[in-house]
Amino acid sequence: MSRIDELVQLVGQQHVLTGADAESYTVDWRGRYSGAALAVVRPGSVDEVAQIMRWCSQNKIPVVPQGGNTGLCGGATPDSSGDAIVLSLTRLNAVRSIDTDNDTMEVEAGCILQSVQQAAREADRLFPLSLAAEGSCTIGGNLATNAGGTQVLRYGNARDLVLGLEVVTPQGDIWHGLRGLRKDNTGYDLRNLYMGSEGTLGIITAATVKLYPLPVAQCTALLALASVDDAVKVLAAARKGFGAALTGFELIAGNCLQGVVRCYPQQRIPFEGESAQMPWYALLELSDSESAEHARERFEEVVGETIEAGLVADAVIAENITQSKALWHLRESIPLAEKAFGKSIKHDVSIPVSRMADFVTTTNAALQASFPGIEHVTFGHLGDGNLHYNVARGEAYTEEELLARQADIYHLVHESVHQFNGSISAEHGVGQLKRDALPRYKDPIELALMHSIKQALDPLGIMNPGKVLV
Amino acid sequence: MSRIDELVQLVGQQHVLTGADAESYTVDWRGRYSGAALAVVRPGSVDEVAQIMRWCSQNKIPVVPQGGNTGLCGGATPDSSGDAIVLSLTRLNAVRSIDTDNDTMEVEAGCILQSVQQAAREADRLFPLSLAAEGSCTIGGNLATNAGGTQVLRYGNARDLVLGLEVVTPQGDIWHGLRGLRKDNTGYDLRNLYMGSEGTLGIITAATVKLYPLPVAQCTALLALASVDDAVKVLAAARKGFGAALTGFELIAGNCLQGVVRCYPQQRIPFEGESAQMPWYALLELSDSESAEHARERFEEVVGETIEAGLVADAVIAENITQSKALWHLRESIPLAEKAFGKSIKHDVSIPVSRMADFVTTTNAALQASFPGIEHVTFGHLGDGNLHYNVARGEAYTEEELLARQADIYHLVHESVHQFNGSISAEHGVGQLKRDALPRYKDPIELALMHSIKQALDPLGIMNPGKVLV
Repeated sequence: MSRIDELVQLVGQQHVLTGADAESYTVDWRGRYSGAALAVVRPGSVDEVAQIMRWCSQNKIPVVPQGGNTGLCGGATPDSSGDAIVLSLTRLNAVRSIDTDNDTMEVEAGCILQSVQQAAREADRLFPLSLAAEGSCTIGGNLATNAGGTQVLRYGNARDLVLGLEVVTPQGDIWHGLRGLRKDNTGYDLRNLYMGSEGTLGIITAATVKLYPLPVAQCTALLALASVDDAVKVLAAARKGFGAALTGFELIAGNCLQGVVRCYPQQRIPFEGESAQMPWYALLELSDSESAEHARERFEEVVGETIEAGLVADAVIAENITQSKALWHLRESIPLAEKAFGKSIKHDVSIPVSRMADFVTTTNAALQASFPGIEHVTFGHLGDGNLHYNVARGEAYTEEELLARQADIYHLVHESVHQFNGSISAEHGVGQLKRDALPRYKDPIELALMHSIKQALDPLGIMNPGKVLV
Repeated sequence: MSRIDELVQLVGQQHVLTGADAESYTVDWRGRYSGAALAVVRPGSVDEVAQIMRWCSQNKIPVVPQGGNTGLCGGATPDSSGDAIVLSLTRLNAVRSIDTDNDTMEVEAGCILQSVQQAAREADRLFPLSLAAEGSCTIGGNLATNAGGTQVLRYGNARDLVLGLEVVTPQGDIWHGLRGLRKDNTGYDLRNLYMGSEGTLGIITAATVKLYPLPVAQCTALLALASVDDAVKVLAAARKGFGAALTGFELIAGNCLQGVVRCYPQQRIPFEGESAQMPWYALLELSDSESAEHARERFEEVVGETIEAGLVADAVIAENITQSKALWHLRESIPLAEKAFGKSIKHDVSIPVSRMADFVTTTNAALQASFPGIEHVTFGHLGDGNLHYNVARGEAYTEEELLARQADIYHLVHESVHQFNGSISAEHGVGQLKRDALPRYKDPIELALMHSIKQALDPLGIMNPGKVLV
């Protein structure tokens, strides 16, 4: 019996894809990485996942787990050998249960993030993980990569939103770890080990996630700022003044907003005169448990103090939900506008907040010295110390010229991040993209420990080979 | 050269304790566990810790790491063989740095928890980990056991408060992982693996911890309740109405409060008539970023709604800080009052909040069936699903009779916890106390994974042998 036949026996003919049917699974969505697969296998149950893993283990077949295939680092794309199967989790897409008294929900790995959010909302609860790909990414992929997003400041990364996991090991055993407990000190934290391991240690098939009360009201403000340093001071004032009601603090360089309105003329920067030409802006979001009026009052008081202190040049506080949405829409349009202006080189970095201003100044200067005229496209989640520190060709370079120097630009930025005690991957992960950079930037003992754990849990090396670790 | 002489060469004569000098380190503070040690070694630097571990590794000498020696499960007490050294971290007690813009602090393992809180407060920040032993426990011990405490509802367990670690491995290597980053997706989560491993994988020597703004005001309320079921409904209303301002939600059985006022007549239950005789009470704490008046107003509104809904029989909202403290003092006096009434049998369990009422009813009934007249002493952190579900001899048994049946009582309660999908150790850890129960209650695959990791990181088995894993 051929290997394909054996797989068909495990999951059925229509769930083993090969040839043209498999193609969309072997290329990442941006077309940056492409590979080949022995087959794409789409199990319909956790038991089928376990059977597949036992088969892979017996036959030493590498496995590339895949969710919505929306990753940005090539973590879900097989290599070109064609030896591996792509194990697609999308058929495991049940919301198994919701427990509103316990504020938890049990979901399968293949659930689309938006469906998880929606199921929570229908139970009058919030599942706060939120990111650009939420319409097509899966919760399993989010957990395997410890996804971030726009509400990390208040609710944390994916790891912080999970209480329990169900995992299939490379050997085909099932760890039934779907606990709905906020405290459980009976052993090692395997849950956080699997999350963020990008499918290199095992396969997350389901999770018990935390739910929160839906905020009664949300309100947004846009502040015009003279410097990153002022933004950092405003962040401290906002954390103090709003407490945990502060659910978003996004930093945006002025040219990003100008790019958005150039690209989408129906949008506008809600300032006039000098305030519309500031080098930096901050978008703040409050989630209030009282009322929209209360949120506005709080904004007026705390933002008023920062204006008086000379930290904020100008401010717009949304009067209603429509205005709040319009302000968020400006922020969310930045990546699209960026795309409209052609190829850019993206860096997803984190830096201690206290060193952010210095990092931006220093790195901008270094880039201009090596690549005169290159355009900085800087925005990100300042509240988490996470910058999307991107660069575009601007007027100075052709697309080809920029691409030709991509590796040099990565290197310059990553070296600077490292000098500022930052991370070269804040929320996107390692995958293939940053795998070869890790040995340069990680503590060697840490890398050795990672290798020990990989060897212990996946001694055959069949779990997503070539990802994260060299 | 003798082994003692070799240790003296590493850390100096006065930091190698033997004989009578070592005694207090080989017995736990409650006197439940006692052992013997080759020596107690007190390194003064991380490099000395690394040298000691290299020496232990070369000579296959077991190591029992110890902080403030305040653990409740015998996790820091050596066995009786006298083969192990106790490695006391108390001399590593520097607050290395505070970064207020980044809201982080770098502290060494031997810092007393109260000193860490105090250093944060002096920088106008909150370090929210808070528990009964804070005057003598060390932050290293807190992290090694993933300590909980009274503010977990809002700020999480110890694991949630740490961004980076410095760890010495069993081989004597130093992992320099002191990152102050809220987002870092460059590999496996070693940080959470070491935390909660109770010194069985390596030695935490320092940590970068998260700081928060100090609340502007705190206010406390005590509610009189008819049932645990009502308490669960009030918890949901409080989470919805207060959002993240809700920093405490403690459940207290009526007889606990009565025990406190019997034992400490200067304290009083702030209710009259029937309200003073209710079977359950809940202590709520709000941490407000506006003002004490605002906190009181919010309490009045939300508690008012729960009274109208028939969920709360009576309520007292503190008028000022003194009253708030008096209410907390009632809660904090329960363990002391318990002690005053003689030996009790303690269970530190967690249960999904939605099953809490059923758990208490069912387990109380089962205990009364097997141990008629035994007294329930039930209180805990309902917001986290964590109960200190203790039992006392009451009038029905002598101390000897109770102790003679201790194992049976543990067994009955743990079986019930297990049936309700709970954990037999919510916040105290495993240590020696619950080690032998783990194989009964943990998923066998999970235990096997834990053993694989232990074997990978500590192949000689010298790290705190006999703790957590059999």
